[in-house]
Amino acid sequence: MSRSNVYHTRVAFSDCDPAQIVFYGNYFKWFDTACFEFFWSCGVPAWRELNESRGIIGAPLVNAAAKFMNSATYGDHIAVETTITEWRGKSFVMRHVIRRGDTVLVEGEETRIFAIKDPDHPERIKAIPIPPDIRASCE
Amino acid sequence: MSRSNVYHTRVAFSDCDPAQIVFYGNYFKWFDTACFEFFWSCGVPAWRELNESRGIIGAPLVNAAAKFMNSATYGDHIAVETTITEWRGKSFVMRHVIRRGDTVLVEGEETRIFAIKDPDHPERIKAIPIPPDIRASCE
Amino acid sequence: MSRSNVYHTRVAFSDCDPAQIVFYGNYFKWFDTACFEFFWSCGVPAWRELNESRGIIGAPLVNAAAKFMNSATYGDHIAVETTITEWRGKSFVMRHVIRRGDTVLVEGEETRIFAIKDPDHPERIKAIPIPPDIRASCE
Amino acid sequence: MSRSNVYHTRVAFSDCDPAQIVFYGNYFKWFDTACFEFFWSCGVPAWRELNESRGIIGAPLVNAAAKFMNSATYGDHIAVETTITEWRGKSFVMRHVIRRGDTVLVEGEETRIFAIKDPDHPERIKAIPIPPDIRASCE
Repeated sequence: MSRSNVYHTRVAFSDCDPAQIVFYGNYFKWFDTACFEFFWSCGVPAWRELNESRGIIGAPLVNAAAKFMNSATYGDHIAVETTITEWRGKSFVMRHVIRRGDTVLVEGEETRIFAIKDPDHPERIKAIPIPPDIRASCE
Repeated sequence: MSRSNVYHTRVAFSDCDPAQIVFYGNYFKWFDTACFEFFWSCGVPAWRELNESRGIIGAPLVNAAAKFMNSATYGDHIAVETTITEWRGKSFVMRHVIRRGDTVLVEGEETRIFAIKDPDHPERIKAIPIPPDIRASCE
Repeated sequence: MSRSNVYHTRVAFSDCDPAQIVFYGNYFKWFDTACFEFFWSCGVPAWRELNESRGIIGAPLVNAAAKFMNSATYGDHIAVETTITEWRGKSFVMRHVIRRGDTVLVEGEETRIFAIKDPDHPERIKAIPIPPDIRASCE
Repeated sequence: MSRSNVYHTRVAFSDCDPAQIVFYGNYFKWFDTACFEFFWSCGVPAWRELNESRGIIGAPLVNAAAKFMNSATYGDHIAVETTITEWRGKSFVMRHVIRRGDTVLVEGEETRIFAIKDPDHPERIKAIPIPPDIRASCE
Protein backbone atom coordinates (compact mmCIF):
# COMPACT_ATOMS: atom_id res chain seq x y z
CA MET A 1 0.00 0.00 0.00
CA SER A 2 1.35 3.37 -0.92
CA ARG A 3 1.87 6.27 1.45
CA SER A 4 -0.54 9.16 1.62
CA ASN A 5 -0.47 12.52 3.32
CA VAL A 6 -3.27 14.93 4.18
CA TYR A 7 -2.72 18.68 4.00
CA HIS A 8 -5.27 20.82 5.85
CA THR A 9 -6.03 24.43 5.11
CA ARG A 10 -8.87 26.93 5.46
CA VAL A 11 -10.17 28.84 2.47
CA ALA A 12 -9.34 32.55 2.78
CA PHE A 13 -11.41 35.47 1.51
CA SER A 14 -8.62 36.29 -0.93
CA ASP A 15 -8.80 32.73 -2.34
CA CYS A 16 -12.30 33.48 -3.63
CA ASP A 17 -13.41 35.40 -6.69
CA PRO A 18 -16.37 37.66 -7.45
CA ALA A 19 -18.56 34.57 -7.93
CA GLN A 20 -18.04 34.06 -4.15
CA ILE A 21 -16.31 30.72 -4.70
CA VAL A 22 -12.69 29.59 -4.68
CA PHE A 23 -10.88 30.80 -7.78
CA TYR A 24 -10.06 27.56 -9.57
CA GLY A 25 -6.36 28.30 -10.03
CA ASN A 26 -6.03 28.10 -6.26
CA TYR A 27 -6.83 24.39 -6.29
CA PHE A 28 -3.63 23.88 -8.25
CA LYS A 29 -1.79 26.05 -5.69
CA TRP A 30 -3.07 23.69 -3.00
CA PHE A 31 -2.09 20.65 -5.09
CA ASP A 32 1.41 22.09 -5.20
CA THR A 33 1.55 22.73 -1.48
CA ALA A 34 0.16 19.25 -0.84
CA CYS A 35 2.93 17.85 -3.07
CA PHE A 36 5.54 19.55 -0.87
CA GLU A 37 3.85 18.47 2.32
CA PHE A 38 3.80 14.91 0.96
CA PHE A 39 7.55 14.92 0.35
CA TRP A 40 8.21 16.57 3.71
CA SER A 41 6.12 13.90 5.40
CA CYS A 42 8.34 11.28 3.69
CA GLY A 43 11.51 12.91 4.99
CA VAL A 44 12.64 14.27 1.61
CA PRO A 45 14.60 17.53 2.17
CA ALA A 46 13.17 20.86 0.99
CA TRP A 47 13.94 21.79 -2.61
CA ARG A 48 16.46 24.44 -1.58
CA GLU A 49 18.48 21.79 0.23
CA LEU A 50 18.26 19.38 -2.71
CA ASN A 51 19.33 22.26 -4.90
CA GLU A 52 22.39 22.98 -2.80
CA SER A 53 23.40 19.37 -2.28
CA ARG A 54 22.44 17.84 -5.63
CA GLY A 55 21.40 20.60 -8.04
CA ILE A 56 17.76 19.45 -8.04
CA ILE A 57 15.70 22.62 -8.35
CA GLY A 58 12.41 20.91 -7.54
CA ALA A 59 9.73 18.82 -9.17
CA PRO A 60 8.24 20.84 -12.04
CA LEU A 61 5.10 19.83 -13.86
CA VAL A 62 4.75 17.95 -17.11
CA ASN A 63 1.01 18.00 -16.97
CA ALA A 64 -1.82 18.62 -14.55
CA ALA A 65 -5.53 18.01 -14.62
CA ALA A 66 -8.42 18.52 -12.26
CA LYS A 67 -12.10 17.74 -12.09
CA PHE A 68 -14.20 20.24 -10.15
CA MET A 69 -17.17 18.59 -8.49
CA ASN A 70 -18.32 20.96 -5.77
CA SER A 71 -17.47 24.58 -5.02
CA ALA A 72 -16.09 25.94 -1.76
CA THR A 73 -16.01 29.36 -0.19
CA TYR A 74 -14.09 31.32 2.44
CA GLY A 75 -14.16 29.90 5.91
CA ASP A 76 -14.44 26.31 4.64
CA HIS A 77 -11.99 23.83 6.13
CA ILE A 78 -10.58 21.62 3.39
CA ALA A 79 -8.24 18.63 3.30
CA VAL A 80 -6.05 17.55 0.39
CA GLU A 81 -5.18 13.83 0.36
CA THR A 82 -2.10 13.08 -1.71
CA THR A 83 -0.62 9.83 -3.01
CA ILE A 84 1.89 8.88 -5.67
CA THR A 85 0.07 6.53 -8.02
CA GLU A 86 2.83 5.78 -10.51
CA TRP A 87 6.62 5.96 -10.82
CA ARG A 88 8.03 6.08 -14.34
CA GLY A 89 11.63 6.35 -15.49
CA LYS A 90 11.86 10.14 -15.42
CA SER A 91 8.47 11.18 -14.07
CA PHE A 92 5.90 10.31 -11.46
CA VAL A 93 2.16 10.78 -11.08
CA MET A 94 0.57 12.36 -8.02
CA ARG A 95 -3.09 12.13 -7.20
CA HIS A 96 -4.83 14.70 -5.01
CA VAL A 97 -8.36 14.57 -3.62
CA ILE A 98 -9.71 17.70 -1.95
CA ARG A 99 -12.55 17.25 0.49
CA ARG A 100 -14.65 19.41 2.81
CA GLY A 101 -15.77 16.93 5.42
CA ASP A 102 -17.00 13.95 3.41
CA THR A 103 -17.77 15.96 0.28
CA VAL A 104 -15.26 15.60 -2.54
CA LEU A 105 -14.66 19.04 -4.05
CA VAL A 106 -11.86 18.38 -6.53
CA GLU A 107 -9.90 15.41 -7.84
CA GLY A 108 -6.68 15.99 -9.67
CA GLU A 109 -3.55 14.49 -11.06
CA GLU A 110 -0.11 15.93 -11.65
CA THR A 111 2.75 14.42 -13.63
CA ARG A 112 6.05 15.81 -12.37
CA ILE A 113 9.74 15.34 -13.02
CA PHE A 114 12.80 16.00 -10.89
CA ALA A 115 14.72 18.73 -12.67
CA ILE A 116 18.16 20.24 -12.76
CA LYS A 117 19.37 23.32 -14.63
CA ASP A 118 20.19 22.20 -18.18
CA PRO A 119 24.02 22.37 -18.33
CA ASP A 120 23.85 23.28 -22.04
CA HIS A 121 21.13 25.93 -21.67
CA PRO A 122 21.30 27.48 -18.17
CA GLU A 123 17.99 29.26 -18.83
CA ARG A 124 16.27 25.88 -19.22
CA ILE A 125 15.56 22.92 -16.98
CA LYS A 126 16.08 19.23 -17.67
CA ALA A 127 14.55 16.02 -16.28
CA ILE A 128 16.77 13.51 -14.50
CA PRO A 129 16.04 9.84 -13.80
CA ILE A 130 13.97 9.47 -10.64
CA PRO A 131 16.49 9.44 -7.77
CA PRO A 132 16.14 5.97 -6.20
CA ASP A 133 16.64 7.27 -2.65
CA ILE A 134 13.82 9.81 -3.02
CA ARG A 135 11.56 7.13 -4.46
CA ALA A 136 12.44 4.77 -1.62
CA SER A 137 11.56 7.45 0.96
CA CYS A 138 8.11 7.81 -0.58
CA GLU A 139 7.17 4.15 -0.76
CA MET B 1 -13.80 28.64 -38.83
CA SER B 2 -14.13 29.41 -35.18
CA ARG B 3 -13.18 32.68 -33.53
CA SER B 4 -9.99 33.04 -31.59
CA ASN B 5 -8.57 35.73 -29.35
CA VAL B 6 -5.03 36.39 -28.21
CA TYR B 7 -4.34 37.74 -24.72
CA HIS B 8 -0.90 39.27 -24.19
CA THR B 9 0.84 39.63 -20.87
CA ARG B 10 4.34 39.87 -19.43
CA VAL B 11 5.52 37.50 -16.75
CA ALA B 12 6.03 39.35 -13.45
CA PHE B 13 8.63 38.58 -10.79
CA SER B 14 5.81 37.63 -8.43
CA ASP B 15 4.50 35.09 -10.97
CA CYS B 16 7.70 33.07 -10.51
CA ASP B 17 8.70 30.69 -7.75
CA PRO B 18 11.99 29.84 -6.06
CA ALA B 19 12.90 27.61 -9.04
CA GLN B 20 13.06 30.94 -10.99
CA ILE B 21 10.25 29.86 -13.33
CA VAL B 22 6.55 30.66 -13.54
CA PHE B 23 4.62 28.97 -10.76
CA TYR B 24 2.42 26.53 -12.65
CA GLY B 25 -0.85 27.60 -11.02
CA ASN B 26 -0.40 30.94 -12.76
CA TYR B 27 -0.89 29.36 -16.16
CA PHE B 28 -4.43 28.52 -15.08
CA LYS B 29 -4.86 32.12 -13.88
CA TRP B 30 -3.88 33.24 -17.39
CA PHE B 31 -6.23 30.66 -18.95
CA ASP B 32 -9.00 32.21 -16.89
CA THR B 33 -8.13 35.75 -17.89
CA ALA B 34 -7.85 34.63 -21.52
CA CYS B 35 -11.33 33.10 -21.21
CA PHE B 36 -12.70 36.48 -20.11
CA GLU B 37 -10.82 38.35 -22.78
CA PHE B 38 -12.22 35.90 -25.33
CA PHE B 39 -15.81 36.59 -24.27
CA TRP B 40 -15.17 40.33 -24.11
CA SER B 41 -13.75 40.18 -27.64
CA CYS B 42 -17.00 38.52 -28.73
CA GLY B 43 -19.12 41.26 -27.19
CA VAL B 44 -20.43 39.15 -24.29
CA PRO B 45 -21.03 41.42 -21.27
CA ALA B 46 -18.88 41.11 -18.13
CA TRP B 47 -20.06 38.51 -15.61
CA ARG B 48 -21.29 41.18 -13.18
CA GLU B 49 -23.64 42.50 -15.86
CA LEU B 50 -24.84 39.01 -16.76
CA ASN B 51 -25.35 38.44 -13.07
CA GLU B 52 -27.49 41.55 -12.69
CA SER B 53 -29.49 41.06 -15.88
CA ARG B 54 -29.82 37.27 -15.98
CA GLY B 55 -28.48 35.79 -12.74
CA ILE B 56 -25.51 34.19 -14.52
CA ILE B 57 -22.63 34.33 -12.04
CA GLY B 58 -19.99 33.37 -14.58
CA ALA B 59 -18.56 30.32 -16.29
CA PRO B 60 -17.15 28.03 -13.60
CA LEU B 61 -14.97 25.05 -14.37
CA VAL B 62 -15.96 21.41 -14.69
CA ASN B 63 -12.48 20.34 -15.49
CA ALA B 64 -9.15 21.74 -16.59
CA ALA B 65 -5.95 20.23 -17.88
CA ALA B 66 -2.62 21.53 -19.09
CA LYS B 67 0.54 20.19 -20.63
CA PHE B 68 3.71 22.08 -19.72
CA MET B 69 6.25 21.99 -22.50
CA ASN B 70 8.67 24.84 -21.84
CA SER B 71 9.24 27.03 -18.83
CA ALA B 72 9.11 30.82 -18.74
CA THR B 73 10.50 33.42 -16.39
CA TYR B 74 9.94 37.05 -15.39
CA GLY B 75 10.26 39.58 -18.15
CA ASP B 76 9.08 37.11 -20.81
CA HIS B 77 6.33 38.34 -23.10
CA ILE B 78 3.73 35.62 -23.55
CA ALA B 79 0.57 35.28 -25.63
CA VAL B 80 -2.43 33.08 -24.88
CA GLU B 81 -4.44 32.04 -27.92
CA THR B 82 -7.98 30.97 -27.05
CA THR B 83 -10.67 29.18 -29.03
CA ILE B 84 -13.86 27.33 -28.17
CA THR B 85 -13.46 23.85 -29.62
CA GLU B 86 -16.79 22.32 -28.62
CA TRP B 87 -20.27 23.35 -27.52
CA ARG B 88 -22.27 20.77 -25.59
CA GLY B 89 -25.77 21.04 -24.09
CA LYS B 90 -24.71 22.50 -20.76
CA SER B 91 -20.97 22.93 -21.15
CA PHE B 92 -18.32 24.09 -23.59
CA VAL B 93 -14.64 23.34 -24.14
CA MET B 94 -12.02 26.06 -24.40
CA ARG B 95 -8.54 25.49 -25.73
CA HIS B 96 -5.62 27.75 -24.78
CA VAL B 97 -2.13 27.74 -26.25
CA ILE B 98 0.50 29.87 -24.50
CA ARG B 99 3.48 30.92 -26.56
CA ARG B 100 6.62 33.01 -26.11
CA GLY B 101 7.39 34.06 -29.65
CA ASP B 102 7.12 30.85 -31.66
CA THR B 103 7.82 28.55 -28.71
CA VAL B 104 4.80 26.79 -27.28
CA LEU B 105 5.04 26.87 -23.49
CA VAL B 106 1.72 25.38 -22.41
CA GLU B 107 -1.33 23.83 -24.03
CA GLY B 108 -4.51 23.49 -22.05
CA GLU B 109 -8.17 22.77 -22.10
CA GLU B 110 -10.99 23.89 -19.85
CA THR B 111 -14.54 22.58 -19.71
CA ARG B 112 -16.85 25.24 -18.34
CA ILE B 113 -20.54 25.74 -17.68
CA PHE B 114 -22.68 28.84 -17.37
CA ALA B 115 -23.93 28.87 -13.82
CA ILE B 116 -26.63 30.46 -11.71
CA LYS B 117 -27.12 30.28 -7.94
CA ASP B 118 -29.00 27.07 -7.23
CA PRO B 119 -32.52 28.25 -6.20
CA ASP B 120 -32.84 25.26 -3.84
CA HIS B 121 -29.40 25.63 -2.26
CA PRO B 122 -28.30 29.30 -2.38
CA GLU B 123 -24.81 28.26 -1.25
CA ARG B 124 -24.41 26.16 -4.40
CA ILE B 125 -24.25 26.83 -8.11
CA LYS B 126 -26.09 25.10 -10.95
CA ALA B 127 -25.44 24.70 -14.68
CA ILE B 128 -27.92 26.12 -17.17
CA PRO B 129 -28.30 25.18 -20.84
CA ILE B 130 -25.83 27.16 -22.95
CA PRO B 131 -27.57 30.49 -23.67
CA PRO B 132 -28.05 30.54 -27.48
CA ASP B 133 -27.31 34.27 -27.75
CA ILE B 134 -23.97 33.91 -25.96
CA ARG B 135 -23.07 30.95 -28.16
CA ALA B 136 -24.06 32.92 -31.27
CA SER B 137 -21.81 35.83 -30.21
CA CYS B 138 -18.85 33.47 -29.97
CA GLU B 139 -19.21 31.72 -33.32
CA MET C 1 -7.37 44.98 27.60
CA SER C 2 -8.27 44.42 24.02
CA ARG C 3 -8.86 41.08 22.37
CA SER C 4 -6.27 39.49 20.16
CA ASN C 5 -6.27 36.49 17.85
CA VAL C 6 -3.42 34.47 16.42
CA TYR C 7 -3.64 33.04 12.92
CA HIS C 8 -1.19 30.24 12.12
CA THR C 9 -0.04 29.25 8.66
CA ARG C 10 2.91 27.61 6.94
CA VAL C 11 4.72 29.35 4.11
CA ALA C 12 4.14 27.52 0.82
CA PHE C 13 6.59 27.20 -2.07
CA SER C 14 4.21 29.27 -4.20
CA ASP C 15 4.28 32.08 -1.60
CA CYS C 16 7.96 32.60 -2.38
CA ASP C 17 9.60 34.42 -5.25
CA PRO C 18 12.80 33.89 -7.24
CA ALA C 19 14.79 35.49 -4.39
CA GLN C 20 13.75 32.36 -2.40
CA ILE C 21 11.84 34.46 0.14
CA VAL C 22 8.17 35.24 0.70
CA PHE C 23 6.86 37.62 -1.94
CA TYR C 24 6.04 40.70 0.09
CA GLY C 25 2.49 41.09 -1.23
CA ASN C 26 1.67 37.82 0.52
CA TYR C 27 2.18 39.41 3.93
CA PHE C 28 -0.78 41.64 3.14
CA LYS C 29 -2.75 38.56 2.05
CA TRP C 30 -2.01 37.07 5.48
CA PHE C 31 -2.96 40.35 7.19
CA ASP C 32 -6.29 40.11 5.40
CA THR C 33 -6.86 36.50 6.41
CA ALA C 34 -5.83 37.34 9.97
CA CYS C 35 -8.41 40.17 9.92
CA PHE C 36 -11.13 37.66 9.03
CA GLU C 37 -9.95 35.14 11.56
CA PHE C 38 -10.00 37.91 14.17
CA PHE C 39 -13.64 38.75 13.43
CA TRP C 40 -14.60 35.08 13.31
CA SER C 41 -12.95 34.57 16.68
CA CYS C 42 -15.13 37.40 18.03
CA GLY C 43 -18.31 35.78 16.72
CA VAL C 44 -18.89 38.31 13.91
CA PRO C 45 -20.63 36.55 10.98
CA ALA C 46 -18.82 36.02 7.68
CA TRP C 47 -19.04 38.91 5.20
CA ARG C 48 -21.46 37.01 2.95
CA GLU C 49 -23.91 36.72 5.86
CA LEU C 50 -23.50 40.39 6.79
CA ASN C 51 -24.06 41.18 3.13
CA GLU C 52 -27.29 39.24 2.99
CA SER C 53 -28.63 40.41 6.33
CA ARG C 54 -27.38 44.01 6.38
CA GLY C 55 -25.83 44.87 3.02
CA ILE C 56 -22.33 45.10 4.52
CA ILE C 57 -19.98 43.83 1.81
CA GLY C 58 -16.98 43.59 4.08
CA ALA C 59 -14.28 45.76 5.60
CA PRO C 60 -12.29 47.32 2.76
CA LEU C 61 -9.04 49.14 3.29
CA VAL C 62 -8.42 52.85 3.62
CA ASN C 63 -4.73 52.40 4.11
CA ALA C 64 -2.19 49.74 4.94
CA ALA C 65 1.44 49.78 5.91
CA ALA C 66 4.04 47.21 6.85
CA LYS C 67 7.60 47.11 8.08
CA PHE C 68 9.63 44.11 6.94
CA MET C 69 12.22 43.10 9.49
CA ASN C 70 13.21 39.53 8.67
CA SER C 71 12.56 37.34 5.66
CA ALA C 72 10.89 33.94 5.65
CA THR C 73 10.87 31.05 3.24
CA TYR C 74 8.80 27.97 2.38
CA GLY C 75 8.31 25.49 5.15
CA ASP C 76 8.47 28.17 7.85
CA HIS C 77 5.67 28.14 10.38
CA ILE C 78 4.45 31.67 11.01
CA ALA C 79 1.91 33.24 13.35
CA VAL C 80 0.01 36.50 12.81
CA GLU C 81 -1.14 38.21 15.99
CA THR C 82 -3.98 40.64 15.41
CA THR C 83 -5.52 43.33 17.58
CA ILE C 84 -7.75 46.35 16.97
CA THR C 85 -5.84 49.33 18.31
CA GLU C 86 -8.33 52.11 17.57
CA TRP C 87 -12.01 52.60 16.79
CA ARG C 88 -12.95 55.83 15.00
CA GLY C 89 -16.37 57.04 13.82
CA LYS C 90 -16.28 55.32 10.43
CA SER C 91 -13.02 53.38 10.51
CA PHE C 92 -10.86 51.21 12.72
CA VAL C 93 -7.18 50.38 12.95
CA MET C 94 -5.89 46.81 13.03
CA ARG C 95 -2.38 45.89 14.05
CA HIS C 96 -0.72 42.66 12.90
CA VAL C 97 2.59 41.21 14.06
CA ILE C 98 3.94 38.24 12.13
CA ARG C 99 6.41 36.02 13.94
CA ARG C 100 8.38 32.84 13.26
CA GLY C 101 8.96 31.49 16.73
CA ASP C 102 10.18 34.50 18.69
CA THR C 103 11.50 36.36 15.66
CA VAL C 104 9.35 39.24 14.46
CA LEU C 105 9.21 39.13 10.66
CA VAL C 106 6.72 41.86 9.84
CA GLU C 107 4.71 44.48 11.69
CA GLY C 108 1.78 46.11 9.99
CA GLU C 109 -1.25 48.29 10.34
CA GLU C 110 -4.46 48.45 8.36
CA THR C 111 -7.17 51.10 8.52
CA ARG C 112 -10.48 49.66 7.40
CA ILE C 113 -14.09 50.72 7.07
CA PHE C 114 -17.32 48.77 7.01
CA ALA C 115 -18.78 49.31 3.56
CA ILE C 116 -22.07 49.02 1.72
CA LYS C 117 -22.77 49.45 -1.97
CA ASP C 118 -23.25 53.16 -2.59
CA PRO C 119 -27.00 53.53 -3.29
CA ASP C 120 -26.29 56.43 -5.67
CA HIS C 121 -23.44 54.72 -7.55
CA PRO C 122 -23.91 50.92 -7.46
CA GLU C 123 -20.41 50.49 -8.90
CA ARG C 124 -18.92 52.17 -5.82
CA ILE C 125 -18.75 51.42 -2.14
CA LYS C 126 -19.46 53.69 0.82
CA ALA C 127 -18.38 53.71 4.46
CA ILE C 128 -20.99 53.40 7.19
CA PRO C 129 -20.65 54.34 10.87
CA ILE C 130 -19.02 51.48 12.80
CA PRO C 131 -21.89 49.13 13.75
CA PRO C 132 -22.02 49.22 17.57
CA ASP C 133 -22.86 45.50 17.86
CA ILE C 134 -19.82 44.50 15.78
CA ARG C 135 -17.60 46.79 17.84
CA ALA C 136 -19.03 45.35 21.06
CA SER C 137 -18.27 41.79 19.87
CA CYS C 138 -14.64 42.75 19.34
CA GLU C 139 -13.98 44.42 22.66
CA MET D 1 13.59 66.15 -12.86
CA SER D 2 13.49 62.51 -11.96
CA ARG D 3 12.57 59.68 -14.30
CA SER D 4 9.20 58.05 -14.21
CA ASN D 5 7.74 54.96 -15.83
CA VAL D 6 4.13 53.94 -16.39
CA TYR D 7 3.12 50.28 -16.19
CA HIS D 8 -0.22 49.40 -17.78
CA THR D 9 -2.34 46.41 -16.89
CA ARG D 10 -5.96 45.29 -16.96
CA VAL D 11 -7.67 44.02 -13.83
CA ALA D 12 -8.44 40.30 -14.14
CA PHE D 13 -11.41 38.46 -12.64
CA SER D 14 -9.00 36.54 -10.44
CA ASP D 15 -7.58 39.82 -9.07
CA CYS D 16 -10.96 40.55 -7.48
CA ASP D 17 -12.50 39.20 -4.31
CA PRO D 18 -16.04 38.33 -3.24
CA ALA D 19 -16.72 42.04 -2.62
CA GLN D 20 -16.36 42.34 -6.44
CA ILE D 21 -13.38 44.67 -6.11
CA VAL D 22 -9.63 44.23 -6.46
CA PHE D 23 -8.21 42.31 -3.52
CA TYR D 24 -6.00 44.90 -1.86
CA GLY D 25 -2.89 42.72 -1.71
CA ASN D 26 -2.84 42.84 -5.51
CA TYR D 27 -2.06 46.56 -5.47
CA PHE D 28 1.24 45.66 -3.82
CA LYS D 29 1.80 42.98 -6.48
CA TRP D 30 1.36 45.71 -9.09
CA PHE D 31 3.69 48.05 -7.15
CA ASP D 32 6.29 45.31 -7.31
CA THR D 33 5.83 44.73 -11.02
CA ALA D 34 5.93 48.49 -11.60
CA CYS D 35 9.20 48.59 -9.66
CA PHE D 36 10.70 46.02 -12.02
CA GLU D 37 9.32 47.75 -15.09
CA PHE D 38 10.83 50.99 -13.80
CA PHE D 39 14.31 49.45 -13.52
CA TRP D 40 13.95 47.73 -16.88
CA SER D 41 12.98 51.06 -18.45
CA CYS D 42 16.21 52.50 -17.00
CA GLY D 43 18.32 49.74 -18.54
CA VAL D 44 19.08 47.97 -15.24
CA PRO D 45 19.50 44.22 -15.90
CA ALA D 46 16.94 41.73 -14.56
CA TRP D 47 17.58 40.51 -11.01
CA ARG D 48 18.68 37.07 -12.21
CA GLU D 49 21.46 38.71 -14.25
CA LEU D 50 22.49 40.94 -11.35
CA ASN D 51 22.48 37.84 -9.20
CA GLU D 52 24.80 35.97 -11.54
CA SER D 53 27.12 38.87 -12.23
CA ARG D 54 27.17 40.58 -8.84
CA GLY D 55 25.30 38.45 -6.30
CA ILE D 56 22.48 41.00 -5.99
CA ILE D 57 19.33 38.94 -5.44
CA GLY D 58 16.96 41.85 -5.98
CA ALA D 59 15.53 44.82 -4.16
CA PRO D 60 13.60 43.53 -1.14
CA LEU D 61 11.33 45.70 0.93
CA VAL D 62 12.05 47.51 4.17
CA ASN D 63 8.62 48.99 4.35
CA ALA D 64 5.57 49.62 2.20
CA ALA D 65 2.46 51.70 2.58
CA ALA D 66 -0.58 52.46 0.50
CA LYS D 67 -3.62 54.69 0.63
CA PHE D 68 -6.72 53.30 -1.07
CA MET D 69 -8.88 56.04 -2.52
CA ASN D 70 -11.14 54.38 -5.07
CA SER D 71 -11.92 50.76 -5.82
CA ALA D 72 -11.49 49.01 -9.16
CA THR D 73 -12.95 45.88 -10.65
CA TYR D 74 -12.24 43.36 -13.41
CA GLY D 75 -12.01 44.75 -16.89
CA ASP D 76 -10.69 48.11 -15.66
CA HIS D 77 -7.59 49.40 -17.40
CA ILE D 78 -5.17 50.79 -14.83
CA ALA D 79 -1.83 52.55 -15.01
CA VAL D 80 0.87 52.61 -12.33
CA GLU D 81 3.17 55.63 -12.45
CA THR D 82 6.47 55.03 -10.67
CA THR D 83 9.26 57.37 -9.57
CA ILE D 84 12.15 57.16 -7.14
CA THR D 85 11.67 60.01 -4.71
CA GLU D 86 14.71 59.51 -2.49
CA TRP D 87 18.08 57.79 -2.49
CA ARG D 88 19.64 57.04 0.88
CA GLY D 89 22.91 55.29 1.73
CA LYS D 90 21.56 51.75 1.71
CA SER D 91 17.94 52.22 0.68
CA PHE D 92 15.71 54.11 -1.71
CA VAL D 93 12.10 55.23 -1.76
CA MET D 94 9.75 54.48 -4.64
CA ARG D 95 6.44 56.20 -5.14
CA HIS D 96 3.61 54.61 -7.12
CA VAL D 97 0.33 56.20 -8.18
CA ILE D 98 -2.31 53.90 -9.68
CA ARG D 99 -4.92 55.53 -11.87
CA ARG D 100 -7.92 54.46 -13.94
CA GLY D 101 -8.14 57.23 -16.50
CA ASP D 102 -7.87 60.42 -14.44
CA THR D 103 -9.12 58.84 -11.23
CA VAL D 104 -6.45 58.09 -8.65
CA LEU D 105 -7.17 54.68 -7.12
CA VAL D 106 -4.16 54.10 -4.91
CA GLU D 107 -1.04 55.98 -3.83
CA GLY D 108 1.81 54.10 -2.30
CA GLU D 109 5.39 54.17 -1.20
CA GLU D 110 7.98 51.44 -0.89
CA THR D 111 11.37 51.60 0.80
CA ARG D 112 13.69 49.02 -0.70
CA ILE D 113 17.30 47.91 -0.40
CA PHE D 114 19.62 46.11 -2.78
CA ALA D 115 20.40 42.80 -1.13
CA ILE D 116 22.93 40.00 -1.31
CA LYS D 117 22.92 36.68 0.52
CA ASP D 118 24.45 37.28 3.94
CA PRO D 119 27.87 35.57 3.77
CA ASP D 120 27.66 34.74 7.49
CA HIS D 121 24.08 33.43 7.39
CA PRO D 122 23.28 32.01 3.92
CA GLU D 123 19.60 31.75 4.89
CA ARG D 124 19.46 35.52 5.36
CA ILE D 125 19.83 38.56 3.16
CA LYS D 126 21.88 41.71 3.73
CA ALA D 127 21.66 45.27 2.42
CA ILE D 128 24.56 46.70 0.42
CA PRO D 129 25.34 50.35 -0.27
CA ILE D 130 23.31 51.59 -3.27
CA PRO D 131 25.38 50.63 -6.34
CA PRO D 132 26.34 53.99 -7.93
CA ASP D 133 25.93 52.65 -11.49
CA ILE D 134 22.38 51.48 -10.82
CA ARG D 135 21.54 54.81 -9.24
CA ALA D 136 23.06 56.66 -12.19
CA SER D 137 20.95 54.62 -14.63
CA CYS D 138 17.81 55.69 -12.79
CA GLU D 139 18.45 59.40 -12.61
